[in-house]
Amino acid sequence: MVQRDSIAPGGIVGILGGGQLGRMIAMAAARLGFKTHIYCPEEDAPARQVAYQWTVGAYEDIPRLEAFAASTDVVTYEFENIPAETAKLLANRTLVRPHPAALEIAQDRELERKFLTRIGVPVSPFHIVSTRQELDRAVDAITLPAVLKTRRGGYDGKGQAVLRKAADADSAWEAVAGAPSILEKFVPFKKEISVIIGRGQDGQYAAFDPSENRHRDHILHQSLVPCDEPEPTMVAAHQHAIRIAEALDYVGIMAIEMFVLEDGALDPLMINEIAPRVHNSGHWTIDACHVSQFEQHIRAICGWPLGTSARHSDALMQNLIGDEVLEWRTFMTNPQLCLHLYGKNPPRPGRKMGHFTRLLPLGTSRSQINSG
Amino acid sequence: MVQRDSIAPGGIVGILGGGQLGRMIAMAAARLGFKTHIYCPEEDAPARQVAYQWTVGAYEDIPRLEAFAASTDVVTYEFENIPAETAKLLANRTLVRPHPAALEIAQDRELERKFLTRIGVPVSPFHIVSTRQELDRAVDAITLPAVLKTRRGGYDGKGQAVLRKAADADSAWEAVAGAPSILEKFVPFKKEISVIIGRGQDGQYAAFDPSENRHRDHILHQSLVPCDEPEPTMVAAHQHAIRIAEALDYVGIMAIEMFVLEDGALDPLMINEIAPRVHNSGHWTIDACHVSQFEQHIRAICGWPLGTSARHSDALMQNLIGDEVLEWRTFMTNPQLCLHLYGKNPPRPGRKMGHFTRLLPLGTSRSQINSG
Repeated sequence: MVQRDSIAPGGIVGILGGGQLGRMIAMAAARLGFKTHIYCPEEDAPARQVAYQWTVGAYEDIPRLEAFAASTDVVTYEFENIPAETAKLLANRTLVRPHPAALEIAQDRELERKFLTRIGVPVSPFHIVSTRQELDRAVDAITLPAVLKTRRGGYDGKGQAVLRKAADADSAWEAVAGAPSILEKFVPFKKEISVIIGRGQDGQYAAFDPSENRHRDHILHQSLVPCDEPEPTMVAAHQHAIRIAEALDYVGIMAIEMFVLEDGALDPLMINEIAPRVHNSGHWTIDACHVSQFEQHIRAICGWPLGTSARHSDALMQNLIGDEVLEWRTFMTNPQLCLHLYGKNPPRPGRKMGHFTRLLPLGTSRSQINSG
Repeated sequence: MVQRDSIAPGGIVGILGGGQLGRMIAMAAARLGFKTHIYCPEEDAPARQVAYQWTVGAYEDIPRLEAFAASTDVVTYEFENIPAETAKLLANRTLVRPHPAALEIAQDRELERKFLTRIGVPVSPFHIVSTRQELDRAVDAITLPAVLKTRRGGYDGKGQAVLRKAADADSAWEAVAGAPSILEKFVPFKKEISVIIGRGQDGQYAAFDPSENRHRDHILHQSLVPCDEPEPTMVAAHQHAIRIAEALDYVGIMAIEMFVLEDGALDPLMINEIAPRVHNSGHWTIDACHVSQFEQHIRAICGWPLGTSARHSDALMQNLIGDEVLEWRTFMTNPQLCLHLYGKNPPRPGRKMGHFTRLLPLGTSRSQINSG
């Protein structure tokens, strides 16, 4: 069903955040005939280079945010750590999608764990930790090994510490700087996968095939599709994603990272994290699918029907982090790679500068993918 | 070989012309990390919506053109009717690709016909017509039916008149308003195809599979790939395209429209027209190829190696002309269509407002493509 209140081409899509995700959302919006307005604190943001309008402003600058909201037909965000207050202020003046409520849950690992537990998707046992004493009690309750994670603000392995023995508690508590945290039981897993799911305003959903994610230095290095797991595991992954999106009455693209547990586990999957936005592990969809995660996000937030999430190819996406981007001559010389550079400079260590996708015919064996 | 003088990501690509072709070139440039600068006379140009910088200026405004040139690392153009003087002025101050010489030939049907004849690719018999008397002589020499075309400025069927009998000469001469013209023998053909060929700075080339082009009211309506002709015809089409690109020492994407003649013709193909730019009949490459014509163009003009011209899908591209774009709700509801809207308003009759591509698995039969 076409929504009566869908936003027509020519409308203005506001995007909070000017990084590469905002940039790729802006390009997808332009493809569908929308104009874009970027709002971010940085002068020289990658998304600005492809946007119709932009405002440089702090996320606490109420008059600027109000003017930004007034210029848009819908506002979305490229990352989940914008202040929930900012999203609420905007939501009083324009359409904000996904709902600010999804932000609040994703920003707070305690709310997120409790939400996931309540709706019955599998998460590892956890314990809230607000003081050093509570950490000891949590270690007793959960049993080690376990991972201590700050409730708020963690990403790319920051704000985390592994506890293998009780004596690790002191250094772990130091690593999280005494911030409100959660201790999660470490469950041995074979691999991390993620499901990128889009949900429309009408409740329709479209989930991309799960990808296998490989990390290096706690930063996503590669995503591979398909993820080489048996069909029932894939179906379960999609079912978990749908349950989460439904329970949030979500509109837009959401990423759900899951662990595939060692053979013999009661449940083959465990939810690691949800991100209420387009996601690095879905970049392969630009080149391997008819409709990318970015276009799907635009379709959803503008009240359009979703496109197909079908793939025409197998794919391996690889991030170009920091200095790796200086090898662009090598990547561009390989005619089979779809290269994406984010217009960032300089290539600081750990900075995501670009990515490439290697496309392979459907049904390519995993050993062939790995050998490329 | 990587050219030593290739332009690194972060460089500025100048684009003359702000229409949908400039817009899609700009988006492809951004994907590879380039910034774009649009120069065009229109205030509200579609390409402006996705560009890093833009200048509103006439193609004869020398100071503005000089400032534009100074801001860029390379300049290209989205259409061939910019004054050759403009291209030459820019070429004295920055890199202009394709060479202005290709513009001059493509702007003048007499130069083009003579060039094609000289390099030995097949064109229909023609005769130069500068006066009404010469038209009579040309009719005698060529024999009818024939088509009278102005030497300069024709497009989408404008500046053309068909002569079926000698008595049509008066109305044909009126139709071209007495402008310097060419009379071309009408050769019966089965279909029009086009070859989109990219040629790099190092002479490397990559040609996309020829498409079949279907017109409505003299405007391109659909392009279909593959074009359903025997392999030797396809090979010949590529060979003609390569010969033309080589002879021009061309750098960038070029489109070559050809007629596939009725069975039994001496030569299966005849060159209709060359366009020294990205082309409407190559829009299917965005969705059906690893590397689109737009990215290939950017790679070539920036001195990068070309990407592959391989296709992962069969494709049918259809233009949305004028009011047809108001049916966007219908197109977006079909989840199999890749929709592209150009950010134009209003939808005047004959105006190219967008297109869609229907992707089909490789090897889909022509009847299935037609029935969709």
